[in-house]
Amino acid sequence: MARRKIGIWIIGAKGGVAATVTVGLVALKKGLAPNHGLVTQLPQFAGLDLASFGDFTIGGHEIREVSLYDEVVQLVRVSKAIDAELVAKCKPDLDKIDKNIKPGTLWNVGNKIEQLATDDLRKLKAKETPRAAIDRVQADIQEFQTKNKLDQVVVVNLSSTEPPVDEATVPAKWKDLAKTLDKKTCPLAASSLYAIAALELGIPFVNFTPSLGSAPAAIQELAIERDTCHMGHDGKTGETLMKSVLAPMFAARNLPVMSWVGHNIFGNLDGKVLDDPENKKTKVRSKDRLLHQILGYSPQTLVSIEYIESLGDWKTAWDHIHFQGFLGLPMVLTFQWQGADSLLAAPLVIDLVRLTERAHRNGDRGLLTFLASFFKSPIGVPNHNFVEQFQMLQSWAEKVEAKK
Amino acid sequence: MARRKIGIWIIGAKGGVAATVTVGLVALKKGLAPNHGLVTQLPQFAGLDLASFGDFTIGGHEIREVSLYDEVVQLVRVSKAIDAELVAKCKPDLDKIDKNIKPGTLWNVGNKIEQLATDDLRKLKAKETPRAAIDRVQADIQEFQTKNKLDQVVVVNLSSTEPPVDEATVPAKWKDLAKTLDKKTCPLAASSLYAIAALELGIPFVNFTPSLGSAPAAIQELAIERDTCHMGHDGKTGETLMKSVLAPMFAARNLPVMSWVGHNIFGNLDGKVLDDPENKKTKVRSKDRLLHQILGYSPQTLVSIEYIESLGDWKTAWDHIHFQGFLGLPMVLTFQWQGADSLLAAPLVIDLVRLTERAHRNGDRGLLTFLASFFKSPIGVPNHNFVEQFQMLQSWAEKVEAKK
Amino acid sequence: MARRKIGIWIIGAKGGVAATVTVGLVALKKGLAPNHGLVTQLPQFAGLDLASFGDFTIGGHEIREVSLYDEVVQLVRVSKAIDAELVAKCKPDLDKIDKNIKPGTLWNVGNKIEQLATDDLRKLKAKETPRAAIDRVQADIQEFQTKNKLDQVVVVNLSSTEPPVDEATVPAKWKDLAKTLDKKTCPLAASSLYAIAALELGIPFVNFTPSLGSAPAAIQELAIERDTCHMGHDGKTGETLMKSVLAPMFAARNLPVMSWVGHNIFGNLDGKVLDDPENKKTKVRSKDRLLHQILGYSPQTLVSIEYIESLGDWKTAWDHIHFQGFLGLPMVLTFQWQGADSLLAAPLVIDLVRLTERAHRNGDRGLLTFLASFFKSPIGVPNHNFVEQFQMLQSWAEKVEAKK
Amino acid sequence: MARRKIGIWIIGAKGGVAATVTVGLVALKKGLAPNHGLVTQLPQFAGLDLASFGDFTIGGHEIREVSLYDEVVQLVRVSKAIDAELVAKCKPDLDKIDKNIKPGTLWNVGNKIEQLATDDLRKLKAKETPRAAIDRVQADIQEFQTKNKLDQVVVVNLSSTEPPVDEATVPAKWKDLAKTLDKKTCPLAASSLYAIAALELGIPFVNFTPSLGSAPAAIQELAIERDTCHMGHDGKTGETLMKSVLAPMFAARNLPVMSWVGHNIFGNLDGKVLDDPENKKTKVRSKDRLLHQILGYSPQTLVSIEYIESLGDWKTAWDHIHFQGFLGLPMVLTFQWQGADSLLAAPLVIDLVRLTERAHRNGDRGLLTFLASFFKSPIGVPNHNFVEQFQMLQSWAEKVEAKK
Ligand SMILES: NC(=O)c1ccc[n+]([C@@H]2O[C@H](COP(=O)([O-])OP(=O)(O)OC[C@H]3O[C@@H](n4cnc5c(N)ncnc54)[C@H](O)[C@@H]3O)[C@@H](O)[C@H]2O)c1
Ligand SMILES: NC(=O)c1ccc[n+]([C@@H]2O[C@H](COP(=O)([O-])OP(=O)(O)OC[C@H]3O[C@@H](n4cnc5c(N)ncnc54)[C@H](O)[C@@H]3O)[C@@H](O)[C@H]2O)c1
Ligand SMILES: NC(=O)c1ccc[n+]([C@@H]2O[C@H](COP(=O)([O-])OP(=O)(O)OC[C@H]3O[C@@H](n4cnc5c(N)ncnc54)[C@H](O)[C@@H]3O)[C@@H](O)[C@H]2O)c1
Ligand SMILES: NC(=O)c1ccc[n+]([C@@H]2O[C@H](COP(=O)([O-])OP(=O)(O)OC[C@H]3O[C@@H](n4cnc5c(N)ncnc54)[C@H](O)[C@@H]3O)[C@@H](O)[C@H]2O)c1
Ligand code: NA
Ligand code: NA
Repeated sequence: MARRKIGIWIIGAKGGVAATVTVGLVALKKGLAPNHGLVTQLPQFAGLDLASFGDFTIGGHEIREVSLYDEVVQLVRVSKAIDAELVAKCKPDLDKIDKNIKPGTLWNVGNKIEQLATDDLRKLKAKETPRAAIDRVQADIQEFQTKNKLDQVVVVNLSSTEPPVDEATVPAKWKDLAKTLDKKTCPLAASSLYAIAALELGIPFVNFTPSLGSAPAAIQELAIERDTCHMGHDGKTGETLMKSVLAPMFAARNLPVMSWVGHNIFGNLDGKVLDDPENKKTKVRSKDRLLHQILGYSPQTLVSIEYIESLGDWKTAWDHIHFQGFLGLPMVLTFQWQGADSLLAAPLVIDLVRLTERAHRNGDRGLLTFLASFFKSPIGVPNHNFVEQFQMLQSWAEKVEAKK
Repeated sequence: MARRKIGIWIIGAKGGVAATVTVGLVALKKGLAPNHGLVTQLPQFAGLDLASFGDFTIGGHEIREVSLYDEVVQLVRVSKAIDAELVAKCKPDLDKIDKNIKPGTLWNVGNKIEQLATDDLRKLKAKETPRAAIDRVQADIQEFQTKNKLDQVVVVNLSSTEPPVDEATVPAKWKDLAKTLDKKTCPLAASSLYAIAALELGIPFVNFTPSLGSAPAAIQELAIERDTCHMGHDGKTGETLMKSVLAPMFAARNLPVMSWVGHNIFGNLDGKVLDDPENKKTKVRSKDRLLHQILGYSPQTLVSIEYIESLGDWKTAWDHIHFQGFLGLPMVLTFQWQGADSLLAAPLVIDLVRLTERAHRNGDRGLLTFLASFFKSPIGVPNHNFVEQFQMLQSWAEKVEAKK
Repeated sequence: MARRKIGIWIIGAKGGVAATVTVGLVALKKGLAPNHGLVTQLPQFAGLDLASFGDFTIGGHEIREVSLYDEVVQLVRVSKAIDAELVAKCKPDLDKIDKNIKPGTLWNVGNKIEQLATDDLRKLKAKETPRAAIDRVQADIQEFQTKNKLDQVVVVNLSSTEPPVDEATVPAKWKDLAKTLDKKTCPLAASSLYAIAALELGIPFVNFTPSLGSAPAAIQELAIERDTCHMGHDGKTGETLMKSVLAPMFAARNLPVMSWVGHNIFGNLDGKVLDDPENKKTKVRSKDRLLHQILGYSPQTLVSIEYIESLGDWKTAWDHIHFQGFLGLPMVLTFQWQGADSLLAAPLVIDLVRLTERAHRNGDRGLLTFLASFFKSPIGVPNHNFVEQFQMLQSWAEKVEAKK
Repeated sequence: MARRKIGIWIIGAKGGVAATVTVGLVALKKGLAPNHGLVTQLPQFAGLDLASFGDFTIGGHEIREVSLYDEVVQLVRVSKAIDAELVAKCKPDLDKIDKNIKPGTLWNVGNKIEQLATDDLRKLKAKETPRAAIDRVQADIQEFQTKNKLDQVVVVNLSSTEPPVDEATVPAKWKDLAKTLDKKTCPLAASSLYAIAALELGIPFVNFTPSLGSAPAAIQELAIERDTCHMGHDGKTGETLMKSVLAPMFAARNLPVMSWVGHNIFGNLDGKVLDDPENKKTKVRSKDRLLHQILGYSPQTLVSIEYIESLGDWKTAWDHIHFQGFLGLPMVLTFQWQGADSLLAAPLVIDLVRLTERAHRNGDRGLLTFLASFFKSPIGVPNHNFVEQFQMLQSWAEKVEAKK
């Protein structure tokens, strides 16, 4: 059988994670980089017939004027996280991909993000209704698909974290929500417009950010109606991954956690956006949710996220866990996590695209809950125990393989 | 139904862990302490009909002359790990238990441990054959059972870590091993003699130490023959517990671990014994085994255990994990674990006794592999993933409960 | 010569530090505790003829209703920082000292602190002018001195950190400031009223808190006028001490610090008060000041102070220092400081009282700048290099000794 | 005045530190790198009239066959510590310097180091007397000086750490030591032969390694006799620097240190050599010496140095300091130091050469004790307090400047 051609349409296509996904896929195609960090390269997923690195074409939406290459060079120079020689070899490909990237929408993204955007987009925002923005987004995606002769497109949201949307104001039924799209009072933010754009077209949607995206019930309804699938939200890459691995230990050992303090510092663009109290709120909520679920009670928690410029992409997290042992004795575990954020995220994004495409091909519809292990706040999955979430992924793979 | 009376016969009955088990059980009986750290107090084990704290009577073997109370006071004064007021309230009970503790055996325990023992025991060692020592140990246990009208006894080894025994020199069949017991050349060390003593009597045996104990095939055969059960070895309380929780994360995320360095410092008697290179060897092996199994490859590892007197019971571990992310980028996780070793171990010992007694009552024979999550080197269980080991425990509990 | 009797008059006399000073002095008098943490017990100060532990009598002002003993028991039970047996032996003395403690003033202390106070004091505050409050405070101190036949009194401020006072609103001359004391619009807060009360009487004043105290030029003028001495502010006990020791190393090695992040967590009453953004501002400013002075430039800094109840008196600080090495290479130093805050502070308070009394006896007047090493923000001393500050103390001691 | 031309003759000229010194000086000359890490670039030394980066010519001795460029590429690729682009620009200069590097001597360097050497050198070692080796070394240095028309040469030892030499076997007088140089039983190791070679020629010698070098009394006598100067030993770059900064704090605050544990891990060639127990002994002694001097008593200490290949040049140190506070309460400070070893060392080597050349020009003879702050074990200086050592450097600079 001829290989199927798969398009990855990235929202926030010139951000740190997106640029790393892009340079990474180019490097993997060319055989210039190892498979590290890619879950889908583990032996237990070898029989799944997943799309190969060579099958992918990349495009997307952005709001800033910058070249992919310049974005990547930042990761080389400031963060020393990607090899200069590797990037030099990928430059021509990056320049070509640049041309697939179109202006996105700023609907309800808040001040901090608007300030990043081009003047044109800010003006457009004042004029365009949400519906018009969706139409434009859809036209871009369809043009990308046609021009590149793609068998399938997957849309992934890698754009900046939006301020929280009050979910109570979002109508629960698709037909009611659809009506708001023509109005200036539409409560949704851009991430949800992108989700609607994709799902209406029957295209799978993955939300790697803590923004609302496809989470509202009405949009979940739309996905089912259009016979497609989606999942979110907020990629689980560092401190929260550690929480979902350590908290089950404290639970299983009946060691009550009295307090769990987590301080995160980093200096990339994501960090700058999250430095705004409004945008930070969305993220902190997502990082703080799981402890209660895993432990069955609520220790005092503190999550801080601070922009420290010199760190660049190097997210450093320090967590202090104060727990009680036998006879009530207080004990302490601390950890220090030093990882380059975009390089932790990028392989998971590639994994999610490969698995989502495979699930869609398999006929999975609605929420892809088996992807829970990839997310800080997996929609529809109350279990935050990482190993148990990973078992869900393995079981799904076994079932899909058995069907072949 | 009248409550069954259960005896806990502890080898190393005046050591740090033993003393904590003892004062802890007294405190729990009197309602003076919370349940923290006891796995068997989790809701999922509530329906198992486990023995209650009030059902236990404690006795055991020792080689040093010291009172339980004095041993506990060390944990109060030096380590500030147990409350002075609590201990004061338990003193009369501790003094009574002291009388149940008999002289043990020093067979092949090596120099370091022999130096701790009384002169009498050292002299006895020169005269007694292994068989004679076993007979004496059995008589002590049986007297304990009769005098205290116990329905069941469980033997737990909490004695000092012995130097390694060359397993190749231990006959594989019980009938061949039994013959060596009359000879001065018997290759076994004390921990295995205690195991044989218990199992021959049909009494369950739990080995909380890294010493060989009941691990040899010939002794496993004996357990089956005498229709009883056993498990080991080396309680998983700190750094290794962390490894069995963190390594599966690196495996599941395909993040190759390049090196894993673990430094352990502490200052109790256990630390003093492990400071001897011979005895340390046994422990390091036990702490180092699991990474290969979980990861499927062998990163460079280093495990150090050092005696730092001022720390007392406070085991402080610092681990440095160097791993490779996407595009081969090196990243670092470090953790610092500060826990009082005896208070981490003691509740697990109580758990193991309760679960072993229950398993025996249930008819389980041979190795109790469902107890794997409690051990650094669970005999007969290749899986070191903590969460999956814990699932084995939960499944067992469900089956036992279903049978009721 | 007969021993001189010295009174220590503590503002905030039942707070954590005050209670530790008190129980500590009682224990030292009785020979129940070692000298650890007392700078004045170092050999280089042995020839200074400082007051002995037995020479001190304690009294002070408070705003809460609580007994010294109950306050100390918190440090025993919650924080496991002081020995239960020690406290039992000191109880009678604590109960006696309780009687020397009088109601203080709430002038401009802000909401957070007012909430701690008794109803009576809150009512009094509404009625009393600053001048009246000062008069009352002076009467209390004089009664204490007379009743206890004290040769000298030293006043130390150990009360809760006040919200910042706008220093621009404080008149620069004492005669102008004195006039505001009769008005409701007086800009000073309680710490400065206490300072005025002491200095007007010619009594030395030490400000261990970051509150303004005697720092305003007008109050410094008063001290000189009344022929007495004073110093402040903010005791240097933990993270900032570390900064004043580490930053000089980065400076001397020409290793540019790019960012210095400090996170502090603790759970005592001080932590609760500092949890209020207004009060926290005063503290953060004091902790953040010195880096610029030592380094000669301003790296990005972040200081957080968070109330984590379970930690009690155990202040845990995590600092992350990101610096540039040769050829611009970024490197990292992190440290973790785990100390009981009140036990770090208390010996310094005793040192300050002994040294201040000695300086006063020696004829030193105005600011006691040689005490700089004890303070986060030493008034009048631009040098924050700890070792150089300590040399100032040693030089002073040599000079005083030479004069004898 | 015309610039003076200065030669740096490096023993171990292709090692990690040497390669970094070399590439660094080339980069500094070309204006491609910032001054970070160079103490001599601080404002307080601006008036000293030190040699400029452009004044230096590099040569030296080696025992391995490798090119400087290849050595530097390791620091680029494995350790990601030096910029690839920077190195590319310096390659021609490195290739030229390669030609100035001559075969050294293996006298008494022990097995581990011999294994690194070329066959030729191993054979030569069997034949040559120490005296013959010294003569050869001197001829190489003189040829270097003549050929490059150098006004002054400074010899710096940057070669691998030798196993300890029993100092008791080294004659105390130069005339007695000189006699042993003709014998196979000469107790000195190579580092001392190099020292003798330099000093006999009146050339200053700096020993950056913990090897004995010029430390013996007889060699110190030689330096004076030949009217030249020298200093050592063991550059203070990481964990020990931290100790010399932190220990004075514990001393000044009268906080008794109970134990100080330091674990060092790294993976460069130096680490491989130090992995040999013999060579490690020399280093550990040097790292462990200072605490007693600073504190005035000897806490329990532990220093480990372990070779962890994946870390490359990144020396990671974890130190655990257990100290006693007021009323005897135990408290803990831990730190984690992550620095690239060669990049920490290289600027100090350049500083030492500049300062030694200046001191020689100034007429300083014998031990240059004012350089103490640069060394873990400064010969002839009992004071290990870093800030006070740095004051010695500043005072010297003031005096030299005043003389100008
Ligand atoms: N480890 C990780 O990096 C990680 C983990 C979990 C989640 N995330 C989330 O992934 C997202 C991307 O992270 P990043 O580090 O790449 O951030 P980034 O700031 O580097 O990139 C975000 C990009 O989105 C663009 N953008 C913003 N609003 C847009 C809009 N409305 N339409 C189109 N483009 C828009 C921005 O211009 C920017 O280029 C963030 O929301 C982040 O919180 C990242
Ligand atoms: N967290 C933990 O404390 C932990 C975890 C896993 C395993 N372990 C193991 O548990 C054991 C006990 O630890 P501990 O801290 O109580 O040590 P410990 O040294 O305080 O106690 C051991 C006791 O065993 C006694 N003993 C030694 N040889 C004996 C013999 N042949 N017969 C009878 N008694 C003997 C000693 O006299 C001592 O009282 C050690 O082997 C240790 O390695 C402990
Ligand atoms: N390591 C340290 O503990 C440390 C270091 C530097 C500075 N300080 C400062 O020392 C002070 C005391 O610290 P603490 O831990 O004892 O705090 P604390 O909250 O335990 O004690 C403060 C006491 O002051 C009393 N108080 C408040 N306002 C008062 C007023 N106007 N008059 C009289 N009493 C008043 C409170 O009731 C309380 O009893 C704080 O300002 C703190 O920031 C402490
Ligand atoms: N931060 C630091 O890197 C640091 C700090 C203090 C001291 N030091 C010391 O500096 C020295 C150099 O460190 P490095 O990291 O460059 O080590 P390295 O192993 O990379 O370099 C040492 C070089 O010396 C050469 N050599 C060995 N014996 C020799 C001999 N007899 N004659 C000539 N050359 C010889 C080796 O071949 C090697 O090239 C070591 O002794 C080290 O302990 C280094
Ligand atoms: Na123990
Ligand atoms: Na306090």
